[in-house]
Amino acid sequence: MITGKNYIGNQLSASGSKTFKTFNPLLNIENQWEITEASKDEVHQAAELGAEAFKIYSKISGKKKAEFLRAIAYEIEALGDDLLQVYSSESGLPNGRAMGERGRTLGQLRAFANHIEEGNWVEASIDTAQPDRTPFPKVDLRKMNMPLGPVVVFGASNFPFAFSTAGGDTAAALAAGCPVIVKSHPMHAATGEMVSSAVIKAAEKTGMPNGVFSNLNSSGIEVGQQLVKHPKVKAVGFTGSIRGGRALYDLAAKREEPIPVFAEMGSVNPVIILPEALKNRAAAIAKTYSGSITLGTGQFCTNPGLIIGLKSEGLTNFVNILAKEIVTVEPSCMLHPNIVRAYEANKEKALSQKGLKVLANYDTEVQANYARQVVTTVEGDTFLNNLTLHHEVFGPFSIVVQCDNEQQLETIVSNLEGQLTGTVISDNNEITSYSGIINALQNRVGRIIFNGVPTGVEVCPSMLHGGPYPASTDSRFTAVGVDAIKRFVRPFSFQDWPNGLLPDELKNENPLGISRLVNNENTKAEI
Amino acid sequence: MITGKNYIGNQLSASGSKTFKTFNPLLNIENQWEITEASKDEVHQAAELGAEAFKIYSKISGKKKAEFLRAIAYEIEALGDDLLQVYSSESGLPNGRAMGERGRTLGQLRAFANHIEEGNWVEASIDTAQPDRTPFPKVDLRKMNMPLGPVVVFGASNFPFAFSTAGGDTAAALAAGCPVIVKSHPMHAATGEMVSSAVIKAAEKTGMPNGVFSNLNSSGIEVGQQLVKHPKVKAVGFTGSIRGGRALYDLAAKREEPIPVFAEMGSVNPVIILPEALKNRAAAIAKTYSGSITLGTGQFCTNPGLIIGLKSEGLTNFVNILAKEIVTVEPSCMLHPNIVRAYEANKEKALSQKGLKVLANYDTEVQANYARQVVTTVEGDTFLNNLTLHHEVFGPFSIVVQCDNEQQLETIVSNLEGQLTGTVISDNNEITSYSGIINALQNRVGRIIFNGVPTGVEVCPSMLHGGPYPASTDSRFTAVGVDAIKRFVRPFSFQDWPNGLLPDELKNENPLGISRLVNNENTKAEI
Repeated sequence: MITGKNYIGNQLSASGSKTFKTFNPLLNIENQWEITEASKDEVHQAAELGAEAFKIYSKISGKKKAEFLRAIAYEIEALGDDLLQVYSSESGLPNGRAMGERGRTLGQLRAFANHIEEGNWVEASIDTAQPDRTPFPKVDLRKMNMPLGPVVVFGASNFPFAFSTAGGDTAAALAAGCPVIVKSHPMHAATGEMVSSAVIKAAEKTGMPNGVFSNLNSSGIEVGQQLVKHPKVKAVGFTGSIRGGRALYDLAAKREEPIPVFAEMGSVNPVIILPEALKNRAAAIAKTYSGSITLGTGQFCTNPGLIIGLKSEGLTNFVNILAKEIVTVEPSCMLHPNIVRAYEANKEKALSQKGLKVLANYDTEVQANYARQVVTTVEGDTFLNNLTLHHEVFGPFSIVVQCDNEQQLETIVSNLEGQLTGTVISDNNEITSYSGIINALQNRVGRIIFNGVPTGVEVCPSMLHGGPYPASTDSRFTAVGVDAIKRFVRPFSFQDWPNGLLPDELKNENPLGISRLVNNENTKAEI
Repeated sequence: MITGKNYIGNQLSASGSKTFKTFNPLLNIENQWEITEASKDEVHQAAELGAEAFKIYSKISGKKKAEFLRAIAYEIEALGDDLLQVYSSESGLPNGRAMGERGRTLGQLRAFANHIEEGNWVEASIDTAQPDRTPFPKVDLRKMNMPLGPVVVFGASNFPFAFSTAGGDTAAALAAGCPVIVKSHPMHAATGEMVSSAVIKAAEKTGMPNGVFSNLNSSGIEVGQQLVKHPKVKAVGFTGSIRGGRALYDLAAKREEPIPVFAEMGSVNPVIILPEALKNRAAAIAKTYSGSITLGTGQFCTNPGLIIGLKSEGLTNFVNILAKEIVTVEPSCMLHPNIVRAYEANKEKALSQKGLKVLANYDTEVQANYARQVVTTVEGDTFLNNLTLHHEVFGPFSIVVQCDNEQQLETIVSNLEGQLTGTVISDNNEITSYSGIINALQNRVGRIIFNGVPTGVEVCPSMLHGGPYPASTDSRFTAVGVDAIKRFVRPFSFQDWPNGLLPDELKNENPLGISRLVNNENTKAEI
């Protein structure tokens, strides 16, 4: 049952007076549930309760936290088809995607559970004492990662499961030992409440402290601002627009005690197609990219919004085939009328720029809230000199930049903003002739792809999902994969601390059997 | 020979018109050398040159970078006693300290050299492809740490060698693969030039690109500001005051592309003395702390400025002995008249606070620029309610807080600002009865010490030198020890990248023989 209330720890609460409804973009009607926005008091309570819970939760063993994470996965699954239906009614995303994204979310929770149960992630490091060293004796030092404190997670519009309530940020923070306060995304508040009920049930069943998780509703920006400014909050996870992410970053940087904000934001995910590849397989590449540009109505953060090539017969060929292919894709529904409106406005703004030529435009009438894909071309010079064209148009929109020569291509790549991904399409060994371009690309991205598409973000330890600003506010961390846990910890040293009082990870006996750096040697041995 | 010029890469340069001189606090006279401040042009050139050098330097092997770092150590040593004399004439620090700090600096350079030569620090992680996986094939992903780009290092006043020109921040950044631009500390600009000449000689001898290192002079804040705002600069290292560090942090956060600032700032390094310890060995503890408070004229960032105990006969005893002991220490010279002035002003401000009682004050006449130590007492309540008393007085000054009961002690600890260290003095097992206090302390510090003194920062992998704000601007990183390299890198992923084009660290053959996480197993094996 959906109550529209907030979870302040284990308690449903709706002391505020402001309410709102979510929207079904597919049916173009409001959903029935009345959602109550969190009041200032409730926001404060959630943060205070999180800080209280931290005292206990930060000390809970990896094994117990893993039980909690697995129980969350179990309880989400137990919500069954009801959850998938609410998801689709609030996002317009089809059942197959709902199932797939749920699977990914459960997989993430279980991957973090395995990660913290195994325990090596704390990066335990031990330097034993040398009391006889001269001129000064050496003290005993032992270091490991410790959780930061309560973390605020902002739900993402485009991933109602995988990057929202119990998504990657929440799983990473809970795994690290940090209580989580979710600022639920207003477009899928009911989905958020259902998932929250699963988290709370799991917390109660596995004996987690009250306040380890809270879920707050809001349709505006106040609740989020209040959370980021709250002195008990120690870090923030966000996935969304550059404007939104930067506003939170600025707010956090201005605090008396600044805190880290991990905002994963916009990216046009440049794709460079090299000449031989264009010459030999323009049609195949055009087909693949027609699919990647329109995948999920262009609403993936790794959507390829920028394709760059050297002027040639091959490029002309590619452009013509892409034009034909892209309009054969049936338009689909976007997440919300606001997102459709933003897409239309950003598209219009881009199209009004001098020198941008529409290559293909799906111009048949479509249902309300459906997005019509557009691909355009532009000259290298024009692109280089107009920063508006460098900005993401969130949706199925892509620009093909036609460069005069290699030097121009390298200059363009060097002048791009920071990106999540960069892709190189190359035949055989031709890539070896373009090292300047590849190096420039590497400098601007977090992940570089050979002969593939940027869409599709594998959840595994070697994934880096992030990148130089504005792809993310902190290129030093990933938002996807188990290393995302590193965002929410700090290393901590114990000096000459009594063995019995050390965390198990640092005790002489190594009771958890984890891998540790002991006097500069990796070992699982006792001391 | 000292020219007073800046190093813009390998070139000595002095295009500016503003000059200044350094000061010998021991003799209370100006030093002879005329130092020329870097002009705006020179600052810009150094940053641009750093960015050019980065293209090459970021790709240089760990082995070659290690040669460079070892060559720096060699060239610094080759400067011999001349360097030590200039050091002392600009800091007032004795020859023994100069030798010790030089040894530490050389040790740091060599430790980083070993660290990058061994190579495991890049945290290589490989997930191999599974082309047959359903429903989607799995791509090949390989991740490792990559350097961020040019780093600005601000020299610290209190460590003219170990945290200045070729100190810990510089060594860490160079080890990571980042060119360094030093903003030399105005109090020891000549020492800085000499050390810079060693770095440049080492760079030339080992074939490093011009611009891998620059050294800029300035007596004001403009050069530093210009550097932090420069778009080619990607990170900042700083050791100094909260005011200075926060100003740089704010400047960096306001950039179009915000960059990380690692500022290691103030700390009062609270020491909690438990009742049994006070009862059994008040005299020994008082003697030890009399030494720690006055060590290096109280100019270490880990100086114990706050001692907290429960009111008891033992505490009274401790306080009386400390009062007697502390005045037996001969006052010594501070780094600069400005620092003496700040010490006197901050001391006066603290002493003027209601309820602060002077316990012992070295009141005999001393030489110019010598600091006279002061210890004071205060009631728990008074301390709790007066935040002025929570602030560091940089110098040989310490407050003993006398608490009414455990609850008050825990409240005081919980309300402290973030600290570099926290120390607990305990007899036998009495510490086990104070878990609330210990947990609160752990939350406020970066390193916790049992039965020791906070002064003395061991350079080893398990050291954490940093802590919650304002001890540092980013508690997630250490400024001391080889893990300091982590501040200047970002992880980077290659997807389906051709084996021959991967960095050696990620190639199938594992040519460097480093330890890697391959499909979730730590191994040095080939793929």
